[in-house]
Amino acid sequence: MALIVQKYGGTSVGSSERIQAVARRVSRYCAQGHRVVVVVSAMSGETNRLIALARDIQREPDPRELDVVLATGEQVAIGLTAMALQAQGLKARSYTGSQVRILTDSAHTKARIVEIDSQRILNDLREGFVVVVAGFQGVDAENDITTLGRGGSDTTAVALAAALRADEAQIYTDVDGVYTTDPRIVPEARRLDRITFEEMLEMSSLGSKVLQIRSVEFAGKYQVRLRVLSSFEADDREGPGTLITFEEEQVMEQPIISGIAFNRDEAKLTVLGVPDKPGIAYQILGPIADANIDVDMIVQNVGHDGSTDFSFTVNRGEFERARTILEEQVKPHIGAREVSGDPRICKVSVVGMGMRSHVGIASKMFRTLAEEGINIQMISTSEIKISVILDEKYLELAVRVLHKAFELDQIG
Amino acid sequence: MALIVQKYGGTSVGSSERIQAVARRVSRYCAQGHRVVVVVSAMSGETNRLIALARDIQREPDPRELDVVLATGEQVAIGLTAMALQAQGLKARSYTGSQVRILTDSAHTKARIVEIDSQRILNDLREGFVVVVAGFQGVDAENDITTLGRGGSDTTAVALAAALRADEAQIYTDVDGVYTTDPRIVPEARRLDRITFEEMLEMSSLGSKVLQIRSVEFAGKYQVRLRVLSSFEADDREGPGTLITFEEEQVMEQPIISGIAFNRDEAKLTVLGVPDKPGIAYQILGPIADANIDVDMIVQNVGHDGSTDFSFTVNRGEFERARTILEEQVKPHIGAREVSGDPRICKVSVVGMGMRSHVGIASKMFRTLAEEGINIQMISTSEIKISVILDEKYLELAVRVLHKAFELDQIG
Repeated sequence: MALIVQKYGGTSVGSSERIQAVARRVSRYCAQGHRVVVVVSAMSGETNRLIALARDIQREPDPRELDVVLATGEQVAIGLTAMALQAQGLKARSYTGSQVRILTDSAHTKARIVEIDSQRILNDLREGFVVVVAGFQGVDAENDITTLGRGGSDTTAVALAAALRADEAQIYTDVDGVYTTDPRIVPEARRLDRITFEEMLEMSSLGSKVLQIRSVEFAGKYQVRLRVLSSFEADDREGPGTLITFEEEQVMEQPIISGIAFNRDEAKLTVLGVPDKPGIAYQILGPIADANIDVDMIVQNVGHDGSTDFSFTVNRGEFERARTILEEQVKPHIGAREVSGDPRICKVSVVGMGMRSHVGIASKMFRTLAEEGINIQMISTSEIKISVILDEKYLELAVRVLHKAFELDQIG
Repeated sequence: MALIVQKYGGTSVGSSERIQAVARRVSRYCAQGHRVVVVVSAMSGETNRLIALARDIQREPDPRELDVVLATGEQVAIGLTAMALQAQGLKARSYTGSQVRILTDSAHTKARIVEIDSQRILNDLREGFVVVVAGFQGVDAENDITTLGRGGSDTTAVALAAALRADEAQIYTDVDGVYTTDPRIVPEARRLDRITFEEMLEMSSLGSKVLQIRSVEFAGKYQVRLRVLSSFEADDREGPGTLITFEEEQVMEQPIISGIAFNRDEAKLTVLGVPDKPGIAYQILGPIADANIDVDMIVQNVGHDGSTDFSFTVNRGEFERARTILEEQVKPHIGAREVSGDPRICKVSVVGMGMRSHVGIASKMFRTLAEEGINIQMISTSEIKISVILDEKYLELAVRVLHKAFELDQIG
């Protein structure tokens, strides 16, 4: 008898057959006595179709109006899912983000959840309803429709699980768990039974597409038990997926490295010949932040002759916009020599909790890449990960040799 | 300097080109100094696509969930229309029925508007925005999404015009006004410059597809000036359409007959051998009303031998359901002899304010039909119309001979 929030992504609700399969799975959980809240994304392809419609009208769609249009994708999916649950004999009721009242800030197309009013859902659960909630969307204080950005449905699910004090948030996707790396690149990649929040956070932020980073942050912050499962397995042989654990739950000794993450959706920008004085990082990144462009990796080299070079990476889709800002606003303002950039890069990272207690991981990583003649353009490290920026063409090669070097294909 | 509510139907916003044409027209009105509120329907085909998706999941889609799904059609259209207006250089903002707050009752898929909160729209207009509102939808007191049923966008437009005290509600459609009858059936049909509310009400309720009946009722009740125009005319030669007038505005002498309306979407049901005693009409129609089936024409013949026959018409799509109710609930309960029905009928009506002061209209109508050997199955009259039920196969013939007999092809 648990309260479970299950999230189904776009491919999991991509057709009426898939929606009916979701309803059958929910029905099995209900038959076991669990109470279930279902969060769904838009049917696969729908969001892209809507974006294309919008772009056909306005080259840069107005963010407020784009959110009005995009939010319909999930709204269709919740209605259909509730119908499928009813067709399974369950009581079911759907809610949009506005109805639940998932209150967000007003950053259209990339809003953040501020608060969730869970009262109506709790009432429905008490009356025996399965509650279906639209992922990815909310409303701001003005009652304007907002969306959380790509992957936002995961965040909705975790935030709802936190608000409802659910026993587990289950993220159903087209893979059956979190792998040591992408099996499409390394066939020997293994599914992890468990991974810590910290590792998952690094894996997500580094481009592992399984979970959206904000959902992992949310889960960590509110101590929500999170599990990644496949919605594509036959009804009767559902695997255990990967449980994202809190560190204190880890009983066995931690493997040193849990996985190799990568992201090819990045671009690099460098401001050369920057006067080396206090406040310069803010003067460069302030205008970028004002334009609502997320910055990922930031590297500043040690200066010489009173000047330095400053590099950072952004989402590849924001490359031109960021470059224009640097050229037009930042360069003349701070008196930099030159702005250069490269949209054809990738980021590859080695992630693992065990890194904290083991030395030599970095040097092993760099040696492995050097042996293949792969040049490293930027390096950034944290407690539990080492990331390098490489020419995009080396992505697959780098992932494969690192996966092998750290023996991730060996059973733990 | 007027405040105008313009409503655009599904074909008028059926593609990005059409939406851009709408934006250009609105822009011309704004350039003339008018303030404009735009009400849009779903892009043509969208509502049917959504219904098909729903039926694929649940044969009889749950009305609450169906409304959740259907309301997305208009939501996409308002976002795109607002973008198109912005692309024309206008300030524009869209609202769903829930956001405006168009409060309705809870009769899902056929809700009625209770109240409109016009404050936010008035604020936006004051700040120079064109406001785009989703037609066809609202929310009930529980904040559940409702839809007003087919053609409900006209009602939204008129209700908004009433709430905003607009100078005129303009209904843009694929025809350039109200005609003496359907030009596809009678090529000589003429566009009427003016028609009274009472006549329009009869024309609408009798199946003239130009305006939805509830919108005309609303317009009459709240004294909203209503005009029907074509959205398919070239930008620079927009016609005057047809103005729906209050009777006191009529200056010229009224033509006796304004038009021939018809409806092929009806079915006839008869309960034979009904005991002729008080309360019998209620006992027959009560269960039909309880099942939320609208009844149109009702005819009860004079009884003889203590029993009578009772006939009525319903929407053809409700025929089987109504027949089952009569057979299973009504017939045994009231002790009727037999239930018969015919889904292949049509209704043809002659409508005109002048009928009140002229005699002989009915006999002329019946003689005209008799001369063509057309049998009349039921007759019903009001102050300003005479309707007959005929075998469906006579529809076109009846409309043509009546149009000619009443000289509707002659210029008034």
